Amino acid sequence: MQKNQSRIVIEDVRPQINCGEFYIKRVVNEIVNVSAVVLVDGHDIIASSVLYKHEKDKNWSETRMTPQHNNEWNASFSVDKQGYYSYKIEAWVDYALNWQHGIIRKIQDNQYVKSELLEGIQFLQNLVDEENFEEKNYFLHLIYIFGNEASYDEAIREAMSDRLHHIFANHPKKLLTAYSKELKVYVDRVKARFSTWYEFFPRSSSEHYGVHGTLKDCERLLPRVQRMGFDTLYLPPIHPIGEVNRKGKNNTTTAEQGDVGSTWGVGSRFGGHKDIHPDLGNIDDFKALIHKAKEHNVEIAMDYALQAAPDHPWVKEHPQWFKWRPDGTVQYAENPPKKYQDILPIYWESEDYVNLWKACLDILLYWIDCGIEIFRVDNPHTKPYHFWNWIITQVKAKHPNVLFLAEAFTAPKVMHQLGKQGYTQSYTYFTWRNSKHEIIEYVEELTKTDQKEYMRPNFWPNTPDINPHHLQGANESKHIQRYALAATLSSNIGIYGPVFEYMKSEGLIGREEYLNSEKFQVTHYDWNVENKLITVITKINQIRHQHEALQQTNNIKFCYVENSNLIAFYKWNDSKSSEVLVIISLDDHSSQQGMVQLPLGDLGINNGHPIALTDLITSNTYTWKDEWNFVELHPTLPFHIFKIKK
Amino acid sequence: MQKNQSRIVIEDVRPQINCGEFYIKRVVNEIVNVSAVVLVDGHDIIASSVLYKHEKDKNWSETRMTPQHNNEWNASFSVDKQGYYSYKIEAWVDYALNWQHGIIRKIQDNQYVKSELLEGIQFLQNLVDEENFEEKNYFLHLIYIFGNEASYDEAIREAMSDRLHHIFANHPKKLLTAYSKELKVYVDRVKARFSTWYEFFPRSSSEHYGVHGTLKDCERLLPRVQRMGFDTLYLPPIHPIGEVNRKGKNNTTTAEQGDVGSTWGVGSRFGGHKDIHPDLGNIDDFKALIHKAKEHNVEIAMDYALQAAPDHPWVKEHPQWFKWRPDGTVQYAENPPKKYQDILPIYWESEDYVNLWKACLDILLYWIDCGIEIFRVDNPHTKPYHFWNWIITQVKAKHPNVLFLAEAFTAPKVMHQLGKQGYTQSYTYFTWRNSKHEIIEYVEELTKTDQKEYMRPNFWPNTPDINPHHLQGANESKHIQRYALAATLSSNIGIYGPVFEYMKSEGLIGREEYLNSEKFQVTHYDWNVENKLITVITKINQIRHQHEALQQTNNIKFCYVENSNLIAFYKWNDSKSSEVLVIISLDDHSSQQGMVQLPLGDLGINNGHPIALTDLITSNTYTWKDEWNFVELHPTLPFHIFKIKK
Repeated sequence: MQKNQSRIVIEDVRPQINCGEFYIKRVVNEIVNVSAVVLVDGHDIIASSVLYKHEKDKNWSETRMTPQHNNEWNASFSVDKQGYYSYKIEAWVDYALNWQHGIIRKIQDNQYVKSELLEGIQFLQNLVDEENFEEKNYFLHLIYIFGNEASYDEAIREAMSDRLHHIFANHPKKLLTAYSKELKVYVDRVKARFSTWYEFFPRSSSEHYGVHGTLKDCERLLPRVQRMGFDTLYLPPIHPIGEVNRKGKNNTTTAEQGDVGSTWGVGSRFGGHKDIHPDLGNIDDFKALIHKAKEHNVEIAMDYALQAAPDHPWVKEHPQWFKWRPDGTVQYAENPPKKYQDILPIYWESEDYVNLWKACLDILLYWIDCGIEIFRVDNPHTKPYHFWNWIITQVKAKHPNVLFLAEAFTAPKVMHQLGKQGYTQSYTYFTWRNSKHEIIEYVEELTKTDQKEYMRPNFWPNTPDINPHHLQGANESKHIQRYALAATLSSNIGIYGPVFEYMKSEGLIGREEYLNSEKFQVTHYDWNVENKLITVITKINQIRHQHEALQQTNNIKFCYVENSNLIAFYKWNDSKSSEVLVIISLDDHSSQQGMVQLPLGDLGINNGHPIALTDLITSNTYTWKDEWNFVELHPTLPFHIFKIKK
Repeated sequence: MQKNQSRIVIEDVRPQINCGEFYIKRVVNEIVNVSAVVLVDGHDIIASSVLYKHEKDKNWSETRMTPQHNNEWNASFSVDKQGYYSYKIEAWVDYALNWQHGIIRKIQDNQYVKSELLEGIQFLQNLVDEENFEEKNYFLHLIYIFGNEASYDEAIREAMSDRLHHIFANHPKKLLTAYSKELKVYVDRVKARFSTWYEFFPRSSSEHYGVHGTLKDCERLLPRVQRMGFDTLYLPPIHPIGEVNRKGKNNTTTAEQGDVGSTWGVGSRFGGHKDIHPDLGNIDDFKALIHKAKEHNVEIAMDYALQAAPDHPWVKEHPQWFKWRPDGTVQYAENPPKKYQDILPIYWESEDYVNLWKACLDILLYWIDCGIEIFRVDNPHTKPYHFWNWIITQVKAKHPNVLFLAEAFTAPKVMHQLGKQGYTQSYTYFTWRNSKHEIIEYVEELTKTDQKEYMRPNFWPNTPDINPHHLQGANESKHIQRYALAATLSSNIGIYGPVFEYMKSEGLIGREEYLNSEKFQVTHYDWNVENKLITVITKINQIRHQHEALQQTNNIKFCYVENSNLIAFYKWNDSKSSEVLVIISLDDHSSQQGMVQLPLGDLGINNGHPIALTDLITSNTYTWKDEWNFVELHPTLPFHIFKIKK
């Protein structure tokens, strides 16, 4: 027998991940739409609010919920600061409204309600007794007439009035109050949601053929990165590369003289995760690069690859962090079917895990201290989930600006788990989603299920590890198409250039690997060459920066087109001040035509209402009046991004 | 930093209601199918079990889970005792299997695995060190050859062997073990799932016109109830009926001389909830009735209506259990739009709620002591949810056989909540589901969603409160149809007779109430009259008792029929030892024909495989060989219940 247990039941509070175990994610100034089922026994009138506060706020803010059908209630609140917010539902029986509801029904039923008027006085008195109650005089008058037979007619008029209803509703006396469990939102800076990444290998940055690029060379390329519209420059590991078991070109296990090895084979006699490869430069060069990049509105993202070449200093200094076999060796790393003979995995079950975790955290803090605020994490799914939860929490507590991108090309549930444990963004299967059906199904999964609350997708058409079959030897149109898809479907995107924009997509036969991959060798590019693909990428990136509808991922509605080579969708920002319609052809050889159905309901218009569509690439404007409209796309420019004006 | 936190994540454990807040429900010897997502970082081989135990068991039983696609695992366990069971998931990394998996891949890759064999010795030694390890000699031999260069060929053969795999798999060394939250099942006696109810008003049981029936008269009707195949006889309240504000015939507010009042207006100068209406007899008569009923394999179910007539003894003895208004009155009960002027609601927010709850519990315990084990609870949705949770828990702790049926004709979420809080069974919306689409949609909701875990439906074609429009003045075929639907779709069913079997379904104009309702007056029946409807009800009830497929509700698959007046479904018991195909026409005027599609996949047969269908009413047998088969039903016998023989 529990005293004072509320008669109210609150259940099915959404959003909520794993029964509240994990926080949901937002960026600054986003909205959290909360819903819950709120019940009371019997027929009493209840009300409910969402209470929310930032971790540094002392008091809860309150926003009243609105009842929907089937005992569901909802409300929204906005998060305007970085860090953690808490939110919970509060619900109560509103006896004053209850009383009014009852008396109105009786008056309408022509009953004599003297007794009910007397009953009502207590609810009036409750508010009169409150300090600073602005309707005090009105209520004193009501108390007088409710108790006075002579003013019965006036009393019942006032008892039924909307005025009284609104005063009661806005000054609830919360009784038998129930609360839901407290849930959490973590709020990131806006870049967590909207970012445009460019990846290149610093060692391929030299102007001169056959010369190992340096961090200084990278500075030279910053204006190009900025000009193309990228705001994040992600560099594969820049640390010393192991000399023991070093990989040769094209992933051969025997390096030849002069082979530079895999950048992910971190550590050598020149140092480990806190050191810079001597051929790239030194720490001052790196700090200068970070600084220069910021001047170009570009942030440098570092790679965080927790593994060690056999000659990484940790192997000698902390042998307990590796798992030694009876024959005195450590089994090299694998990510089946891939073998990394040049890399030793860390032994996460080490007894000395406390020092290991601290050392891993130190690495991050060191680079954060140098000015880095974005990390792309290599193979996070081969390290314990609770380690990620711990280290991300540690970093964000002091450095809330820091973002983590999970390279989790693995099983869906594992990828999701990393998002739940705290990763800011995740690589996705977009890289392999090529047909219209696959793309729509995958984007619906990301944006229309709970995944939208904890996994922020980052769409990459290619990476140094993945040269997808559909891009191998693909033409310019196919490259434009894949970039347009990534950049309009997802607000976080990236490409591994310059192989992408120069379409150097020759693969190893039968595998999704690049031939002569930069992972294992230095490549020379003439970075000054311009081409149409670069122009289109630049233009698309400009459009993304100008149109908020494309700076978010979840507000998307696919439109019906009776052509499996045409994909069309409508996107909007929360305030609907920015709305776009995107149509992309998946055919890189022939023209495709079709009738596109406008989502009139979502657009909030009726059939016949004209809308102006401006193609943001060509600046042509079309007026569409009907629900169904003809489109035709040619491989030379296989997409439309229309700005919608109603 | 949490020491020893497992690398394993267990999530999405099902079944689970409100994050484990409520138990799921089963009856004795049912199966619980458990599934969960189980993950580890990296590529280690993991294993998992469901652990379960009855509340009186000391130790957990274990059943190993089987991996499905997408990191989902499942297993089943059976509950063979009444009361609470707990279940949880246990998962671990299996290093021995991990080792074997690794060495097999290397051997297949033609690698020299001397080092791996040495590594393997530790896993062999672990088991050799265990007491009573039945493969000790084999393992000692393996340890010898694994460490002996000369027997390398034999060693790698054995290392790869299925024999070794099975031994490791069956003797797991559970390391880094993770556990899910503990969840609960409550197990009832079988009647919670399979019951056939008959309801009549004891005061209408007399043989003589114009005479108030008695409990003794009811004894006379027991053979009839048994013969018709009912196992539960539910009596509306048998307590003294209030004399103050007593209702007249047809729910009029002014009773005339001789009016008997509503049976739900409980309490008068003759007593309250623990007393028997003097016109019905006394407590000994009631005990005799309970006893006699048991001899006929019929259980008496009582009504539990927590409310009071204005002259109920509680009103004077415990005025604090009612809410008094300023004018010294208590507002009568309402269940909008219904008004109960003859009933005072209990004030659940009373300061004296502890004594109130105890008094409510005493009522149940008193009748349980008299031999009652089933209660039909009147309007449970107007009493606090936590009160029901408490009182049902209290009763079941001492009297696990007791069952509670919720009369919750209210909002869906409220109905569901009562199920979650502990009600054994619930009335449903079946009473109003009439078209094929409505019926299928509703049954799918009950049997294919989480509702199946906590809400056991009880299908009633009619009740004293609900004379549905489709039965008012309906013909015999319609009555047969509604009974056949209820009795084959749901394993718990009931009718309010004799109005049902005698088709006395005249309604109040425009309302779903009976004209001259027995709620407010005594009715005379000639209980000896037989008719075709009684014959059909009797036959259907026999079939239900003989065929386990019809003794459960959830194993159901609707079959496609291209006719909106024909509904067809396949049902089976868990072991599939009982399988039926039911086809019912919804047309009570004309013949209906259609092609029924057999669910070949669920039946486990291929097209062309003949099955024998025996009509359990007519005993005719048909052989069907094809997926699609012709059926025709005429209003005279508008259904088939086929026993399936493959």
